[in-house]
Amino acid sequence: MTAATAKRILLTGFEPFDKDSVNPSWEVARALDGALIAGGVVHALQLPCVFGAAMPVLDEALAQLQPTLIISLGLAGGRTDITPERVAINMDDARIADNAGNQPVDQPVVREAPAAYFSTLPIKAMVRNLRDAGIPASVSNTAGTFVCNHVFYALMHRLARRAGPGVRGGFIHIPALPQQAAQHPGMASMALETQVQGIRSAIHTAMTVQEDLQENAGQLH
Amino acid sequence: MTAATAKRILLTGFEPFDKDSVNPSWEVARALDGALIAGGVVHALQLPCVFGAAMPVLDEALAQLQPTLIISLGLAGGRTDITPERVAINMDDARIADNAGNQPVDQPVVREAPAAYFSTLPIKAMVRNLRDAGIPASVSNTAGTFVCNHVFYALMHRLARRAGPGVRGGFIHIPALPQQAAQHPGMASMALETQVQGIRSAIHTAMTVQEDLQENAGQLH
Amino acid sequence: MTAATAKRILLTGFEPFDKDSVNPSWEVARALDGALIAGGVVHALQLPCVFGAAMPVLDEALAQLQPTLIISLGLAGGRTDITPERVAINMDDARIADNAGNQPVDQPVVREAPAAYFSTLPIKAMVRNLRDAGIPASVSNTAGTFVCNHVFYALMHRLARRAGPGVRGGFIHIPALPQQAAQHPGMASMALETQVQGIRSAIHTAMTVQEDLQENAGQLH
Amino acid sequence: MTAATAKRILLTGFEPFDKDSVNPSWEVARALDGALIAGGVVHALQLPCVFGAAMPVLDEALAQLQPTLIISLGLAGGRTDITPERVAINMDDARIADNAGNQPVDQPVVREAPAAYFSTLPIKAMVRNLRDAGIPASVSNTAGTFVCNHVFYALMHRLARRAGPGVRGGFIHIPALPQQAAQHPGMASMALETQVQGIRSAIHTAMTVQEDLQENAGQLH
Repeated sequence: MTAATAKRILLTGFEPFDKDSVNPSWEVARALDGALIAGGVVHALQLPCVFGAAMPVLDEALAQLQPTLIISLGLAGGRTDITPERVAINMDDARIADNAGNQPVDQPVVREAPAAYFSTLPIKAMVRNLRDAGIPASVSNTAGTFVCNHVFYALMHRLARRAGPGVRGGFIHIPALPQQAAQHPGMASMALETQVQGIRSAIHTAMTVQEDLQENAGQLH
Repeated sequence: MTAATAKRILLTGFEPFDKDSVNPSWEVARALDGALIAGGVVHALQLPCVFGAAMPVLDEALAQLQPTLIISLGLAGGRTDITPERVAINMDDARIADNAGNQPVDQPVVREAPAAYFSTLPIKAMVRNLRDAGIPASVSNTAGTFVCNHVFYALMHRLARRAGPGVRGGFIHIPALPQQAAQHPGMASMALETQVQGIRSAIHTAMTVQEDLQENAGQLH
Repeated sequence: MTAATAKRILLTGFEPFDKDSVNPSWEVARALDGALIAGGVVHALQLPCVFGAAMPVLDEALAQLQPTLIISLGLAGGRTDITPERVAINMDDARIADNAGNQPVDQPVVREAPAAYFSTLPIKAMVRNLRDAGIPASVSNTAGTFVCNHVFYALMHRLARRAGPGVRGGFIHIPALPQQAAQHPGMASMALETQVQGIRSAIHTAMTVQEDLQENAGQLH
Repeated sequence: MTAATAKRILLTGFEPFDKDSVNPSWEVARALDGALIAGGVVHALQLPCVFGAAMPVLDEALAQLQPTLIISLGLAGGRTDITPERVAINMDDARIADNAGNQPVDQPVVREAPAAYFSTLPIKAMVRNLRDAGIPASVSNTAGTFVCNHVFYALMHRLARRAGPGVRGGFIHIPALPQQAAQHPGMASMALETQVQGIRSAIHTAMTVQEDLQENAGQLH
């Protein structure tokens, strides 16, 4: 198999936002650009951290690449581990402005569309394999209501309507980098190397596991 | 107006679970049973903390009472404040067994039904009024995947299909009681009196505010 | 026994600081002013939240009252429970300015004095009795390095040098009030009534228990 | 300069405890064994995680090496950053048993000795330099009451009584490793490489900075 015949994996990360000079979601995506994982080749794509404007960029990549697997990454400052998201909700509600100054309140991501979509990634198997590899991970039941959830929802809406069989997608939140946490006392972090290794593992799981594990990973509340 | 002509408010709480001897959600509901709030009278109902079995109990009350407003309460041990929930998801994923020993993993609450429903309560106005009254509150974007979310989802599914115009419902998580936190060092709590006052305020808001506030209350992740 | 023949208990609280309009430590002290507890009568005293200036106020009360028991209260915004402090350290290191604009860095509370003093209150028994009464409590191993620790250290220094036999003292941190937490989403709180009941219990324990419990209440780190 | 003429730096770590199979404090010390840092050579020493028994091992190394700098490392599971400790207290109070089954309650580390000692390391400068290097760090005001504090206190007691001029020592708590946090959902962690880089930086600061920074790093409580 060569890169030309390999399946295509689209891995997106965001540009920095909220006064940060770096965004680990893009650093991880960039580090894996071109990687061959379980018969697929990773194409990294940077998205603007802007409501609305992120989607045409993603759409163009979806049209050109026709990827089999799409994973969007986003920073979750304060989380301790790699968290595959379970559900995207049709709701924009911004606590801070995005990079273009937008701050929508209680707006749908897509009008007249379903309230939510579930990730089609094998999130339980991803978490199990990450933990077995010594990398902290857990399933998250909320991706928030900012640009991360916005992209996650819009992606799943497109996949639900237009994707061919076997195309899967979802969103993974990742922790801050140590250099970010060093500026925010008390904030948890994860080294870039660990994050890259973790997302590589997650992609491998998504490329190889068809039926997700039946392991509980829920929250009481 | 008399209780006979008043609008009916159904307020549910759960029986104790997970080794606790008390559940603040029922203590609060019981304390408000019969209260007249903004032209409505509260009917308290205890639900079993059991997947599936909780719903016939709720259904019977819905059929008999024909309430205008339905608020389900549940304990969120560890939360610091009163949290109106934004969204119910169609997912049962139990980290611990319920009171009948059920522990479903990744099962839909209702088969062939939407992925999620949004609360039809004015959750932003509720939070604003609670804070103005000096009671800690915030909007929550996840009700978890246990019996609380199960009841929340099933309630919203019924309301979406069968409710008449003007009927609204949703779910509010509340903190542990001090007596519970006293057994779990580090757990936050809220006095029963504060909780009762808070839920009374939330009901008042739900009975009087038609259009919710356009205030951001989102989370970045 | 009358108030005139009763033992005297000095209970101090601080004036508000850091933009708050209320300080629960003073609200609790004020609420217990004049209370008869286990043969002692409570004298409430408000201290300025100012390095240095707090001590002459305390000294004058110590000289006039000749109390048997001295408990200083202070707010620990964010803590979930009532926390008798174990140790006062000889260190002022202010993260924010006090109410007079002072912000000492790494200065001793008292020059040429010991590095620390241990509380002479029965802190383990206090915690045990609070929990048994359904009030969240735990032993704390650090009172910080702000005005609370400053007063705690200076108090213990005076007691170590000048107090007669049987005089005991210490410091208890208490949580924010709900009305304060309502302005700081996520902050834990405790109702004033619970706090007053808790400090009443703590005073009762201090008046009646001579030998502290031999229960572990330590921290691994 | 050769290793033979270099100043000697004693760096201790603990054996694993509490069911863990690895202890980052020893992994870090081992990784730096033999390193030449700012004119000093690191000698790594493993201590048993046992009250009392840890000290003869340390004493022998102190006598043989005659180190100029002594830094003891310990795991603080749950902390997010590298935390030089400010103060050691004369108190053993074990929440769990040590590796020999000892669980002392409210016992002095050293009888008839001072209540506490302050670290003689430049802890503010260490934290500043760590943050500037992009490594999360903060000053801690409590080392707990378990074997970590026990060793810290006993070390400072020896240095206060027997050390020659210019000999400095203290304790640094470090976070869990990712492989440990992978078994404890929600626990923060730090990669071994980051920890090793961080402790190397801290040693360099301790070898080169005589007067500590006058920067506030205190806690309100």
